[in-house]
Amino acid sequence: MYCCGRSMSFPAAAVDTGSDVKLPSLMLFPHNFEGTQEHCVAALARVERTDFLSPMCIGEVAHVSAEITYTSKHSVEVQVNVLSENILTGAKRVTNRATLWYVPLSLKNVDKVLEVPPIQYAWKELEEDGKKRYEEQKLERLVTKQRNGDIIFPVFNPEPYTVGYSQSSLIHLVGPSDCTLHGFVHGGVTMKLMDEVAGIVAARHCKTNIVTASVDAINFHEKIKKGCVITISGRMTFTSNKSMEIEVFVDADPFVDEPKERYRAVSAFFTYVSLSKEGKPVPVPQLVVETEDEKRRFEDGKGRYLQTKAKRQVQMQPLTQQ
Amino acid sequence: MYCCGRSMSFPAAAVDTGSDVKLPSLMLFPHNFEGTQEHCVAALARVERTDFLSPMCIGEVAHVSAEITYTSKHSVEVQVNVLSENILTGAKRVTNRATLWYVPLSLKNVDKVLEVPPIQYAWKELEEDGKKRYEEQKLERLVTKQRNGDIIFPVFNPEPYTVGYSQSSLIHLVGPSDCTLHGFVHGGVTMKLMDEVAGIVAARHCKTNIVTASVDAINFHEKIKKGCVITISGRMTFTSNKSMEIEVFVDADPFVDEPKERYRAVSAFFTYVSLSKEGKPVPVPQLVVETEDEKRRFEDGKGRYLQTKAKRQVQMQPLTQQ
Amino acid sequence: MYCCGRSMSFPAAAVDTGSDVKLPSLMLFPHNFEGTQEHCVAALARVERTDFLSPMCIGEVAHVSAEITYTSKHSVEVQVNVLSENILTGAKRVTNRATLWYVPLSLKNVDKVLEVPPIQYAWKELEEDGKKRYEEQKLERLVTKQRNGDIIFPVFNPEPYTVGYSQSSLIHLVGPSDCTLHGFVHGGVTMKLMDEVAGIVAARHCKTNIVTASVDAINFHEKIKKGCVITISGRMTFTSNKSMEIEVFVDADPFVDEPKERYRAVSAFFTYVSLSKEGKPVPVPQLVVETEDEKRRFEDGKGRYLQTKAKRQVQMQPLTQQ
Repeated sequence: MYCCGRSMSFPAAAVDTGSDVKLPSLMLFPHNFEGTQEHCVAALARVERTDFLSPMCIGEVAHVSAEITYTSKHSVEVQVNVLSENILTGAKRVTNRATLWYVPLSLKNVDKVLEVPPIQYAWKELEEDGKKRYEEQKLERLVTKQRNGDIIFPVFNPEPYTVGYSQSSLIHLVGPSDCTLHGFVHGGVTMKLMDEVAGIVAARHCKTNIVTASVDAINFHEKIKKGCVITISGRMTFTSNKSMEIEVFVDADPFVDEPKERYRAVSAFFTYVSLSKEGKPVPVPQLVVETEDEKRRFEDGKGRYLQTKAKRQVQMQPLTQQ
Repeated sequence: MYCCGRSMSFPAAAVDTGSDVKLPSLMLFPHNFEGTQEHCVAALARVERTDFLSPMCIGEVAHVSAEITYTSKHSVEVQVNVLSENILTGAKRVTNRATLWYVPLSLKNVDKVLEVPPIQYAWKELEEDGKKRYEEQKLERLVTKQRNGDIIFPVFNPEPYTVGYSQSSLIHLVGPSDCTLHGFVHGGVTMKLMDEVAGIVAARHCKTNIVTASVDAINFHEKIKKGCVITISGRMTFTSNKSMEIEVFVDADPFVDEPKERYRAVSAFFTYVSLSKEGKPVPVPQLVVETEDEKRRFEDGKGRYLQTKAKRQVQMQPLTQQ
Repeated sequence: MYCCGRSMSFPAAAVDTGSDVKLPSLMLFPHNFEGTQEHCVAALARVERTDFLSPMCIGEVAHVSAEITYTSKHSVEVQVNVLSENILTGAKRVTNRATLWYVPLSLKNVDKVLEVPPIQYAWKELEEDGKKRYEEQKLERLVTKQRNGDIIFPVFNPEPYTVGYSQSSLIHLVGPSDCTLHGFVHGGVTMKLMDEVAGIVAARHCKTNIVTASVDAINFHEKIKKGCVITISGRMTFTSNKSMEIEVFVDADPFVDEPKERYRAVSAFFTYVSLSKEGKPVPVPQLVVETEDEKRRFEDGKGRYLQTKAKRQVQMQPLTQQ
């Protein structure tokens, strides 16, 4: 598994700070260099819905392998598999599978998107399936962008289990160590902060230990530059019997360099489950929705919940056979 | 508490590396931009005496709120409150209160101090009180600067409980991750190193677990640039029955960029208490002072100790009512 | 011990990330500045064989002292001693002794090696001994460079205890926080990653807890720049009754800046021992060598093992008397 061209191993302690996400971008360099004349940097544009199958423990070695599965004119789809290996017992298990979309930007002018040299497909069907995924995500990105005007306002003296009761936000000044070599925030840094806010929202709501079960597609609408102040806000949108859905926004204020307006950079839905002291999922208190907007968002969340549940039942068979 | 314009929340694990101090500087940007034409960076000039009321535990969420309480022509006073929230029980408590002074520097020329646009005061008394605090700290900064020629020399084969026995120093090369976007050391990084040295001095003296009780006003006399080598030295100056006062100096050698002379960048007094295994304060061995300088510093420390004790008794009533 | 010109103290937690190695380079600055006209940066060229005498524990204070022991025309030999102090008991012990070679590079043109101003020796013999060490390491660097063409290929379905069974590799993108102020990877960062890979190889082979016993001379053949992707690969070369020797390579791909070829930047041999649950060394499974190359490397490793064993018996007497 280890030591071949497109896969790599990591001690688990190194994986925490978004290394999982940093890695695929490494692999794009050789690909891009083959065909383009201009030097480029791969900007993370979208992470498809990711289910966390199993936690990774300290002392384990993570094996990350990735391959390019589709290229459009201006974007690259990368499939990533994360395996966890207990080096003492030798046991390996899949902890994570993810699909990421990258866009190559010119190193001379990071606002210029470069063309992607096409890959060769083993079967014509692979290209057709990829094209379908490409069109679907393009549409969904558009829809998300339109929904993005929403702002989370502070609520004073909220009642328990309402949306206002658990909503939370963090502020973070983007420093040099958060950034890539080209001065943009690592996708993994943003995702870690989003998960932290979502986790605080979930814990405030149910007052128990909680764990991330899945992250819905994360769309990176705009790059975040070094020196920005980012506000990461989260609010609960939906509760099923044993899960909570939390919507998280990342807004960027480009203070230092230019007096540009605040903009919505990233948004996503996180799903958490509540755990008993024995680590088993337990029922969560139901979310109390009050305003029309909160009711609409609850219904939207229910739609996503049911859709995912249906998809999972379809996928269960092939997944367990792998 | 969370999610309003001038406050922010943080998981406790993120707070350690000086984030407490980084935050207020964030809040100054909007203020400064409103009134000044030139882009600026807020340089930390002074942290007023800070008492550590209660430790923050892992898993708790820190709420940091801050407001500008006074502006002079060239400086800004910021009051910061740190609350710790146990998100499982919902309990909150004040862990820290601090007052910081910032000076706005031009981004085009960081040696140029900009003018601060004045704030509006709710009552005239607030401005008068602020002015009094401003004058007091200005005077004290001057006094401290004069005292700053002192150097800590190595002592060979010192006797237990003498000043030389516990004095300690660290050396640190200021790297990129210690610095702000403009290449100056974060105030929080310096303060963390100072606390480390003071902690080593205290532990060497009393051979028990020790904890920071308070930090006297910290004056940042001069900026420290990326590439400097800083020497942080600490020596015990005074012991009361259950506390130890340690003086800490930070000296900077600007090796890499220019062959400038070593200069005293920061100095402060830290107060530590010794703890029993049950975490209760216990008596500390008395400091053995030998030279005239040591005796003078002991008396000075006693003065500060008695003054603080008197102040605390005055403040106790309003503080417990808050 | 602390607080004199050429020594420094550090809490043990700060020591992990290669601080041990960063420190001596600090001390070279004053030396170089005295004699050279041009500003320079000290590049780590080689670390001599290092035995880990004793682990350093959390809460202990590390005392690092160093002195220049020899200068050739273009290089500086530095001897470093690391003492660990338990500040509660006051007990100190040597944890580490190392000899490092640095080369001064011009800050204006980092490809230009500057001349080193000669030091004064207390006795003529010190200079002669130093010259002998200089010639020896120069020869060994040359030999290592020639051996460096080797590549570690992936092996599919390897048998337990073969070389292919435990061989491992990591990939790392060199980010800003891995680098010195001049954009080159810290020697300590590289050494930490090499130790991680060697540790994974050792643990895969013997399925027990393992600990680094010694590191053979590490030769830094070429600088690694910010933005490189480095591949760190390790394979077992030799097993004695209670120790394992692992060869580690660091290869750099200078993707981002220039489409230069991959090059071998660093290589070294690590020796690990296998520990029982009580922390005592236990016998290790013998390495199964299959190919001619593997057999040759096993014999070479045996040679190094016997040579070191012989040297240690000679050195044992003076060492225990110190």
